[in-house]
Amino acid sequence: METIDGMKWNVYQQDCPTRLALDRIADKWTVLIVGRLSGGTRRFGELRREVSGISPKVLTQKLRELERDGILTRKVYASVPPRVEYTLTPLGKTLIGLLDAVRVWAESHIETMLEAQSTYDRQAAEEVA
Amino acid sequence: METIDGMKWNVYQQDCPTRLALDRIADKWTVLIVGRLSGGTRRFGELRREVSGISPKVLTQKLRELERDGILTRKVYASVPPRVEYTLTPLGKTLIGLLDAVRVWAESHIETMLEAQSTYDRQAAEEVA
Repeated sequence: METIDGMKWNVYQQDCPTRLALDRIADKWTVLIVGRLSGGTRRFGELRREVSGISPKVLTQKLRELERDGILTRKVYASVPPRVEYTLTPLGKTLIGLLDAVRVWAESHIETMLEAQSTYDRQAAEEVA
Repeated sequence: METIDGMKWNVYQQDCPTRLALDRIADKWTVLIVGRLSGGTRRFGELRREVSGISPKVLTQKLRELERDGILTRKVYASVPPRVEYTLTPLGKTLIGLLDAVRVWAESHIETMLEAQSTYDRQAAEEVA
């Protein structure tokens, strides 16, 4: 690990910049957006349709954050109407396998999680009764 | 992938329960809490110290969610004051490697991310000037 002022990068330290990186990638929308861009360049409207449930406002904000972080690039084409395309950078591509594994975990373990929630809620109801 | 009513689990569908699983694990605090519990059982106060910057209120809420999801167990010992301990379940243990890789990514790529942010902010300032 590298250091700043002799401090090792440590995500457990509240004031360590790595918290910022963690905050960005440990994020539902980042997982979904990077997952779609792993298949290649996408237009804004395509991402909006493919990541169902995201509002245009949140999608715009997430894309701007990810662009600023160097995870994707935004390219505007001077057509009418203007076409805006998003593409993963080399840094962004290092996230593909990792975030795909996060998605796969969610899809693979949801049943166990739903069963645990049912058990928890039933026990909580019994304690109240 | 399994199905409910013939629908495949698909985290890209807004109404798919897997969104809930994704939302829980693609979360900064989940990464940090599971990371500490991967080393063994922890008391509330230990977690609060080790995950610096988390408020007691948010820690309580996150621990309750993770307990309900079946990722950790909460055990109360009738001492004075009562001792409360948290331990990963078998389901929670399946997250250790994955979420550790998320932490390592953040600690390994923060410099590239900070450089990208500097470049972005400088270009944005130039466009305004």
